Amino acid sequence: MVQGRISRVSVHDVRFPTSLGAHGSDAMHTDPDYSAAYVILETDAEDGLKGHGITFTLGKGTEIVVCAVNALAHHVLNKDLRDIVGDFRGFYRQLTSDGQLRWIGPEKGVVHLATAAVLNAVWDLWAKQERKPLWKLLVDMDPRMLLSCIDFRYITDVLTEEEAYEEQMLMHGYPAYTTSCAWLGYSDDMLQQLCTEALKSGWTRFKVKVGADLQDDIRRCRLIRDIIGPEKTLMMDANQRWDVPEAVEWMSKLAEFKPLWIEEPTSPDDILGHATISKALAPLGIGVATGEQCHNRVIFKQLLQAKALQFLQIDSCRLGSVNENLSVLLMAKKFGVPVCPHAGGVGLCELVQHLIIFDFISVSASLTNRMCEYVDHLHEHFKYPVIIKNASYMPPKEAGYSTEMKEESVKKHQYPDGEVWKKFLAAQGN
Amino acid sequence: MVQGRISRVSVHDVRFPTSLGAHGSDAMHTDPDYSAAYVILETDAEDGLKGHGITFTLGKGTEIVVCAVNALAHHVLNKDLRDIVGDFRGFYRQLTSDGQLRWIGPEKGVVHLATAAVLNAVWDLWAKQERKPLWKLLVDMDPRMLLSCIDFRYITDVLTEEEAYEEQMLMHGYPAYTTSCAWLGYSDDMLQQLCTEALKSGWTRFKVKVGADLQDDIRRCRLIRDIIGPEKTLMMDANQRWDVPEAVEWMSKLAEFKPLWIEEPTSPDDILGHATISKALAPLGIGVATGEQCHNRVIFKQLLQAKALQFLQIDSCRLGSVNENLSVLLMAKKFGVPVCPHAGGVGLCELVQHLIIFDFISVSASLTNRMCEYVDHLHEHFKYPVIIKNASYMPPKEAGYSTEMKEESVKKHQYPDGEVWKKFLAAQGN
Repeated sequence: MVQGRISRVSVHDVRFPTSLGAHGSDAMHTDPDYSAAYVILETDAEDGLKGHGITFTLGKGTEIVVCAVNALAHHVLNKDLRDIVGDFRGFYRQLTSDGQLRWIGPEKGVVHLATAAVLNAVWDLWAKQERKPLWKLLVDMDPRMLLSCIDFRYITDVLTEEEAYEEQMLMHGYPAYTTSCAWLGYSDDMLQQLCTEALKSGWTRFKVKVGADLQDDIRRCRLIRDIIGPEKTLMMDANQRWDVPEAVEWMSKLAEFKPLWIEEPTSPDDILGHATISKALAPLGIGVATGEQCHNRVIFKQLLQAKALQFLQIDSCRLGSVNENLSVLLMAKKFGVPVCPHAGGVGLCELVQHLIIFDFISVSASLTNRMCEYVDHLHEHFKYPVIIKNASYMPPKEAGYSTEMKEESVKKHQYPDGEVWKKFLAAQGN
Repeated sequence: MVQGRISRVSVHDVRFPTSLGAHGSDAMHTDPDYSAAYVILETDAEDGLKGHGITFTLGKGTEIVVCAVNALAHHVLNKDLRDIVGDFRGFYRQLTSDGQLRWIGPEKGVVHLATAAVLNAVWDLWAKQERKPLWKLLVDMDPRMLLSCIDFRYITDVLTEEEAYEEQMLMHGYPAYTTSCAWLGYSDDMLQQLCTEALKSGWTRFKVKVGADLQDDIRRCRLIRDIIGPEKTLMMDANQRWDVPEAVEWMSKLAEFKPLWIEEPTSPDDILGHATISKALAPLGIGVATGEQCHNRVIFKQLLQAKALQFLQIDSCRLGSVNENLSVLLMAKKFGVPVCPHAGGVGLCELVQHLIIFDFISVSASLTNRMCEYVDHLHEHFKYPVIIKNASYMPPKEAGYSTEMKEESVKKHQYPDGEVWKKFLAAQGN
């Protein structure tokens, strides 16, 4: 079924001016314009199918990721798709281990985001050619084939190819939680209104941004707890704002609002710091969650080894696509840590739903303490947007990785020449 | 003395085709073209002084770093140099914590390399205006001012601004070791010849690249040990080639050649892995060295906390310039770990000599187990190349950070339009 030579690689700088409404604002990212480096792969096969890949960015710097995608393009161009998926580990390593290019990573930052975008497009194309949604492609795949997609370099001390997983279960919607009610830049009135509406729509799990000002946090958390009541689940997210001792101190003051977890309390690189915070907050019943800015499987390995997190948050666009996320799902299973993906952004919900549904069916086989982030933004730009029912992700049925955007949306939001930005930049010029 | 508004920021993609001679080759980087993103800052001051900044790259991808420098340029342009150095921590954080741009790092990979290049140029300019070599600017600086250059965010759990260091000592050349004799791609004959010549020139400390093939390593290490004798110092460097158990096993087989350290045995992100390797190799008398691809102070902090390295290798162009390197020097002092900088590359020797001389005079006050890497390559392109006497770095006397390249060299090696590359690319096209 897999066929065709990659005949064209194009990449677009697509930006949505979300900072205008303070959507997405938190203690460290005060004015994000949700954006994406958006890759399109075309082949010479007669099926005319295209692969769409994304990595999520916050506006500025998207052009740097676009530049990196262009630097990687020659690894993909003129390759036969059969050769790529036939030795996906080899292909993965080609992208991440180029003798010259790896210096400016390695496997982190801009080049790793670009790698994710390119590989996400390959996975989308593969799934489309197999006429399956990505999660189904993964679930149906021979375990040996699945493992052959993973680069085990640097993680064989905790996981080797010999350990395979084959559980299978039926599946209903995957539980979601909402981050849309309590961005840091929202007023109390707006927060109250959004929480009330979300409760009415059936949401039972809520996340609030904290970390900029303690008194504000106490007021906002009290407000939300009062609205949602003591039984519903509340998570908090500091977006890396604190140093280690500060995180412990600050969260001790917010413990009365019974958060399930504190997310990103400090630098995403500080494994031992997260372990210290985890240990200090355990007696308060607060877990530590992190992962959206963990740059590769090696960091996740250590977070698990050091008992540094109680909730693991994979990201579909920062790690090296499905390949690297698979290795993290397997390690999380081995350490008994629930995976609760990071989502929102641009397309992150669309993509990660495939991974978490696969995780449930074929890896974790459990919903205990598990849920996937949901943010109600920008889905209208996607051809196959996520479907949420009863605060749950319903498994997508369309073939592919759900990455494809509407052509009109891409055209309008292309930076800096799309209609939206042309108008916006002209207005700024005045 | 500090004066002027930054009136121009330019950046060049400069590449030297070093892969043609296998110079710089190792187990992971088989064909490096030593390159640099080279930043030039101009001001409106009448002194006409320019700041030159560099970050080191391996060829491909330099254009991505250039793109990132351009994205950062607006933070520097039109700024008064007095305002920058008057609140250097604030300026540093502006570059590293832009709400949108930090997503594609944060503080790692391409954007951090670009940050280093820009800040290196600022430090060079500052030192030139003060008519001092950078190390002297640092040594003479009021400790309070010095600490105000450091961003302590994420490291206050091991080091705070309150702890200051003020020792001062006279200084003679700083001991160096050579990596130029034993690149992985060199033949045994060449290795033999280069080692013999280096011994004659007074070198007493040698580094050999290992990790691609065990039998080759055994043969090459035996050859070198035979030439240099049992008393001279030998270091080994695997350039991240191994997984954790593999590193221990492999080095057990090379222990008979009495290496002082094994450098980069595994992923630069694997703090706990380095700790495991350190523990396993200690009984064999082999230390672990790493740092050239450690992307920020948070990773160094943990390497020290976890006792994961016995030799700490700062890099002048990967960390966020002098500012971030200062924080690492101070942490190393606190943990009693010797700093033995990574050098070589393009300009890395020229830059890092300032930092290590400062370290000796004002921080560590010791030469025990301390030495700075030296590679005899590409110095001829710099206006003020390093001076090596008796296998020691002699302190530079010219004002600035020694970053400035000869105009002719930049012009010839600019990629892809410089004379060298034009010819080379045309030949490839044929």
